[in-house]
Amino acid sequence: MNLAMIRYILGYVLELESVLIAICGGIGLVYGEKQAAAYFIVAVAELAAGLLVKWKKPQDDVFYLKEGCIMTGLGWVLMSLIGCLPFVISKEIPGFVDALFETASGLSTTGASVLSDVESLAHCTLFWRSLTHWIGGMGILVFLLAVIPLAGGSNINVMRAESPGPSVDKIVPKMKQSASILYALYIALMLIEFVLLLCGGMDWFDSLTLSFGTAGTGGFGVRNDSIGGYSNYIQWVIGVFMVLFGVNFNFYYYLVLRKWSKAFETKEVFYYIGIVAVSVLLIFFDIRRVYPVWDALRHSFFQVGAVITTTGYSTADFDLWSSATKWIMVTLMFIGACAGSTGGGIKVARIVIMFKSMLRAFRSYLHPHGVSKIHFEGKTVDNSVIHSVLVYVATFTFIFFVSVALVAVEGRDFTTNFTAVAATLNNIGPGLSQVGPTCNYGGFTALSKIVMIFDMLAGRLELFPILLLFYPAMWKEAVEQERARHSRQVRSQE
Amino acid sequence: MNLAMIRYILGYVLELESVLIAICGGIGLVYGEKQAAAYFIVAVAELAAGLLVKWKKPQDDVFYLKEGCIMTGLGWVLMSLIGCLPFVISKEIPGFVDALFETASGLSTTGASVLSDVESLAHCTLFWRSLTHWIGGMGILVFLLAVIPLAGGSNINVMRAESPGPSVDKIVPKMKQSASILYALYIALMLIEFVLLLCGGMDWFDSLTLSFGTAGTGGFGVRNDSIGGYSNYIQWVIGVFMVLFGVNFNFYYYLVLRKWSKAFETKEVFYYIGIVAVSVLLIFFDIRRVYPVWDALRHSFFQVGAVITTTGYSTADFDLWSSATKWIMVTLMFIGACAGSTGGGIKVARIVIMFKSMLRAFRSYLHPHGVSKIHFEGKTVDNSVIHSVLVYVATFTFIFFVSVALVAVEGRDFTTNFTAVAATLNNIGPGLSQVGPTCNYGGFTALSKIVMIFDMLAGRLELFPILLLFYPAMWKEAVEQERARHSRQVRSQE
Repeated sequence: MNLAMIRYILGYVLELESVLIAICGGIGLVYGEKQAAAYFIVAVAELAAGLLVKWKKPQDDVFYLKEGCIMTGLGWVLMSLIGCLPFVISKEIPGFVDALFETASGLSTTGASVLSDVESLAHCTLFWRSLTHWIGGMGILVFLLAVIPLAGGSNINVMRAESPGPSVDKIVPKMKQSASILYALYIALMLIEFVLLLCGGMDWFDSLTLSFGTAGTGGFGVRNDSIGGYSNYIQWVIGVFMVLFGVNFNFYYYLVLRKWSKAFETKEVFYYIGIVAVSVLLIFFDIRRVYPVWDALRHSFFQVGAVITTTGYSTADFDLWSSATKWIMVTLMFIGACAGSTGGGIKVARIVIMFKSMLRAFRSYLHPHGVSKIHFEGKTVDNSVIHSVLVYVATFTFIFFVSVALVAVEGRDFTTNFTAVAATLNNIGPGLSQVGPTCNYGGFTALSKIVMIFDMLAGRLELFPILLLFYPAMWKEAVEQERARHSRQVRSQE
Repeated sequence: MNLAMIRYILGYVLELESVLIAICGGIGLVYGEKQAAAYFIVAVAELAAGLLVKWKKPQDDVFYLKEGCIMTGLGWVLMSLIGCLPFVISKEIPGFVDALFETASGLSTTGASVLSDVESLAHCTLFWRSLTHWIGGMGILVFLLAVIPLAGGSNINVMRAESPGPSVDKIVPKMKQSASILYALYIALMLIEFVLLLCGGMDWFDSLTLSFGTAGTGGFGVRNDSIGGYSNYIQWVIGVFMVLFGVNFNFYYYLVLRKWSKAFETKEVFYYIGIVAVSVLLIFFDIRRVYPVWDALRHSFFQVGAVITTTGYSTADFDLWSSATKWIMVTLMFIGACAGSTGGGIKVARIVIMFKSMLRAFRSYLHPHGVSKIHFEGKTVDNSVIHSVLVYVATFTFIFFVSVALVAVEGRDFTTNFTAVAATLNNIGPGLSQVGPTCNYGGFTALSKIVMIFDMLAGRLELFPILLLFYPAMWKEAVEQERARHSRQVRSQE
């Protein structure tokens, strides 16, 4: 394992995060807030640490998927650990576990909060919460890919580890260019939303932070009632943009290049839109009994968008809706957005491949000797991809069951335990019952919070980059390789 | 599709069921109950129908897996539809959907009841309820395999369709012999339990019906408080036998033949015992705070046994236990018993294979080019088996989510909807909240009941035999083949 290279890139991660934290400090200065000091202290210390870590350049800059995963896992844990310090130092969130929960929730674009009153927070703190969504959405390492000079072929392994979805398509042959294009699309779409929100009479601060939250499919708001207090226009704009950010970004890329046939082949997007449409209709007819027709349509569209894209904003307390509607919500939590979007969950592409492998099982009863292939997005899906999708879902389910068991230790009700884990592992934010849209995660014990911090990061990074950090064989091998390398060096010096 | 052969074997199924129903009528006569008449009426009508259906012998008696599945699916649906008639005619359960629910619950060895007061039922009705568990446990078609003369090689396809578990091992080369051995072990083990219960001072009726329920891992009792009212000795006997009936029967077969090394290779059994032991310990330490030490041990052992084997008897109202313990119970519901036992659920073998494929995914990060095999029970597990296990779990999950959505329409709470489907699809019986051990399924709407009838049968037959009944391509092909055969016959007559 190329530990030197992992160290080197982690240095870049620290530097970049320090700049982002410094920006939040700047926002604090603009508003004349004393909390700004905490941001500058952390920023300076982190910058120094970053420079120190990066001091010695690694000799060998090639690395493989395992290094990509380990680096991504470590990078995100590190960003969470340091990113929570301004909250602690400024005493906005004095408890370390609480602050870590909030930061991991931000970076993983979950949006689950320990706070009951966000309106009392300083602007710099609100800005940092929303900015973590924005960095976490597309991924800090994907951003670095666009700027760091890396040996050819290595960076795909970082991108693979950090990007949501079963397989990363290189949309252009050069990874660096792919990363730049993705970020350009991401920023452009966010800016359009920002301008549309400004047009709706929202001030620049709310518009920007909520655009960060939508773009990253995060969910932290700046008001206690999330999006419920804004005008209908604002709610529609945010609703539509949530759904847009749940789309596979390759689709936009092809649209921008006017490669219509390629865009049309991104079938996942059509399945995604189909699921959204059916869910909105079902929920609309259900809540139509409680709300006037346009409100029912707006709420059903907004909440379906908020949940399937795993953003987690809310305009209504869906915990009060009917059992069937709540179960549709829970189902959407697990389905999640498109692969290659900023959303979480299992991802539509995986669900489609799973469903097609079920249909293939049916066909195999009819024609036991026929070789039946699965097609998706104009290509035959390789058996190894199908296998890895199924193993992914199995691993996901396993983590889910264990997490609920651990959270259940503190004795809350079944619905709370189930949906708290569903809402954090899938990066949604609000669940049902005691973690419903009007509640928060502040009352959980430290154990439950740590389990959910793990779930949020694991869910965002598609499990393995975080799980591998706990895989002893990986570290054993790394230590042995380091020893071997060291003894080689010693021999060559003799 | 060999429809003639399917018809012919269904005739056998009807004949056999009519004999069993007549036996219940006989029990009614012994107790001088007027309800016995209903059993004799149905038995005679069904026998006549069976003889009529079997009248014409099929020319070609070979059939494949799809015929095995379709026949099994149809056979079980038919047995449920006719088996519920004595309940309706005797007015013990006057509603047809209720009676069908009770019968499907019996045959599928679920043990979920629509009745609140079983103590008011006639003996013949109680006997029929318990007898359905006993037939359903090992499978009526497996029984027929032991007695019907079938062309070599065909009967494995029936056995595959009806037996629980990822793959049917032919324990002896001849399927007919395998089926006989399985039934012999099944009966022997049941008789031992029966005698031990008699020794505990239980009357012969209770001993026999409860032994039927334990053997089939069913769960229908003959008292309103299930097993709670019997002595500690009785509770321990039933507890131990529940766990024994959850063991892969191949294990007993090897033990009886003194093939120790083969028995030791049945690793699934050891995983199963391990899961039972760990769960009993965890729950013991949790409920220890509420019960005296021996009661805590007895209840935890009994309930873990009742749930993992999917029997569903109860000695305590576990709905009142702590959240963590309840979640362990829910997890055990999904894990289920061993493949090749009479229990339901996903099965320990599948869970182990799933878990090993997760571990392989970890290894693949470390050694991306190494070919890593999965070993289980002394053999390398074929990739196609791993794939089918994963697809099975995916299909299971899919049915689960859709069923909960349909059951949720009637608006009960999250826990009830979730565990009602978990307890029926996994063939347990009691769930939590409104379907807890002290409650029943009588209050559900007809829609919910029909969904759960589907789930119980699908769960017992490992999904595909029931799902294939709803697969249009299967029937389309069958109709086309019949047409082609018919026109061939017409041509040859010309």
